[in-house]
Amino acid sequence: MLSIMFYVAITAEAMTAALAAGRRSMDWFGVCILACVTALGGGTARDVFLGHFPLYWVGNPYILVLVCGAALLTIATARLVYRLRWPFLLLDALGLVVFTIVGCNVAIDTGAHPIIVIVSGMVTGIVGGILRDVLCNDVPLVFRSELYATVSIVTGIVYYLGLLAGIATDLMVLVALAVGFPLRVVAIYFKWEMPKFVFDPQMRK
Amino acid sequence: MLSIMFYVAITAEAMTAALAAGRRSMDWFGVCILACVTALGGGTARDVFLGHFPLYWVGNPYILVLVCGAALLTIATARLVYRLRWPFLLLDALGLVVFTIVGCNVAIDTGAHPIIVIVSGMVTGIVGGILRDVLCNDVPLVFRSELYATVSIVTGIVYYLGLLAGIATDLMVLVALAVGFPLRVVAIYFKWEMPKFVFDPQMRK
Amino acid sequence: MLSIMFYVAITAEAMTAALAAGRRSMDWFGVCILACVTALGGGTARDVFLGHFPLYWVGNPYILVLVCGAALLTIATARLVYRLRWPFLLLDALGLVVFTIVGCNVAIDTGAHPIIVIVSGMVTGIVGGILRDVLCNDVPLVFRSELYATVSIVTGIVYYLGLLAGIATDLMVLVALAVGFPLRVVAIYFKWEMPKFVFDPQMRK
Repeated sequence: MLSIMFYVAITAEAMTAALAAGRRSMDWFGVCILACVTALGGGTARDVFLGHFPLYWVGNPYILVLVCGAALLTIATARLVYRLRWPFLLLDALGLVVFTIVGCNVAIDTGAHPIIVIVSGMVTGIVGGILRDVLCNDVPLVFRSELYATVSIVTGIVYYLGLLAGIATDLMVLVALAVGFPLRVVAIYFKWEMPKFVFDPQMRK
Repeated sequence: MLSIMFYVAITAEAMTAALAAGRRSMDWFGVCILACVTALGGGTARDVFLGHFPLYWVGNPYILVLVCGAALLTIATARLVYRLRWPFLLLDALGLVVFTIVGCNVAIDTGAHPIIVIVSGMVTGIVGGILRDVLCNDVPLVFRSELYATVSIVTGIVYYLGLLAGIATDLMVLVALAVGFPLRVVAIYFKWEMPKFVFDPQMRK
Repeated sequence: MLSIMFYVAITAEAMTAALAAGRRSMDWFGVCILACVTALGGGTARDVFLGHFPLYWVGNPYILVLVCGAALLTIATARLVYRLRWPFLLLDALGLVVFTIVGCNVAIDTGAHPIIVIVSGMVTGIVGGILRDVLCNDVPLVFRSELYATVSIVTGIVYYLGLLAGIATDLMVLVALAVGFPLRVVAIYFKWEMPKFVFDPQMRK
């Protein structure tokens, strides 16, 4: 089940990235690359940080085919995808939680320290979006918008504590979904944000 | 022979990167770094993705000396290098094909899946230019200009299929060059581009 | 002693990065991420390049707690930190030298080539600042400001030559500090810069 949701989430990330590429008038190839970086960047960063080779998409390259296929499909159906804004926000929220759980699992398998397990979940969840914004030449949105990384951290902590407490993995996946998914959706709906740190000295340089 | 072309290509990449640095008024050190990132970034990304340590320039650090030397030479001869625009475009086209072949070879040596072999060739060919543009604070050109990555992919597929068919490696290197190099040159000359995906919803945010 | 200075330097880097995040109105989470990337990015890049797993902060995750704590403390005391500009420039200079020494040591331990030892010191010293500027959507300052990387390279060469000459490590750490720290401070004070490479052809595109 986690596996199916993982592929759904990767597809959704690829499609929203393709729309972002369209706003920048990239060519078809750029659309595919941006989709790959966004959908797979988090897991890649995690695997590199943990020294976990081969990377998951090197071991299972059909993921690349899925992502590029989703990106090209988005080109053909851009207006429709754009209208389906809420379904995609929901899928994106699902993806955030699923990526976080997968990231925690990978770190747990390598026997990492609890702090690293949480960080691994968060990196898997958010790095794709950061790389997308850097390639599009923006200050990453994740640093300035609604609760996003926070949702990932909370989900990771709940999931990991549950596993430590001896609860079955399958059950904890459901619990983590039940915590993280509504939290993200509610955060978008009410525009919950982290407090900003605005520092603007009189003396500018 | 491939090895000689590889060094020629790295030198050419370093020199064009140095010119880009000059347009941004970077200092001599910045010129060297940008040259290294552009000339070696593709191979570095490939080695990291494949978990192929030590990186090729860590194992053969004189490549760094070559790249920095080429960059500093460019500072001394900038107007000349700029006038030699066509020779450099040709060397850049050669580099794209040579990097692609080298990238495919490395992936084949690690026993990777065919899709990964093609991706490895493409990453080796294009990531250097993407990193250069990110460091110069541009949206990467490769996402918006003439056929570039496509040339790399076509070259990789031809090369790999040839090897699969049992043709000698040396011969396939020549075939790959004979396919990829003219394709890139013709693409520049006629400004062949991938179709653009321009998505501009009325409702902007 | 090197270890204590290392933690002091990481804390100082985290705090200056937090101020940079404040100028961009990032939220608290973004502040922490930017602090981690700036303070730990150099060592991470070094470990990945050298294939030196686990990464140092994966092996010792309390460093992450230290960096995030320093970043959040900076939010609470921003005006004070900003006034303490000179102390922080001094700490930053100390950090540059300490990071360089640590980077050289890691490369020496892996038995790397002398060129790679110097590069490893430099990467550890400067990559954090480059990543910070890329995430803040600037052309990296290190490419255009006072001697910074040069200080790192000089420090690394002095340190490595001293070790080769058979001088005790502890003594060479002191010598490297005595060379690199004043060099950086003097470079800031007198605004010593590398010569710029300004290339601006008449024919712009």
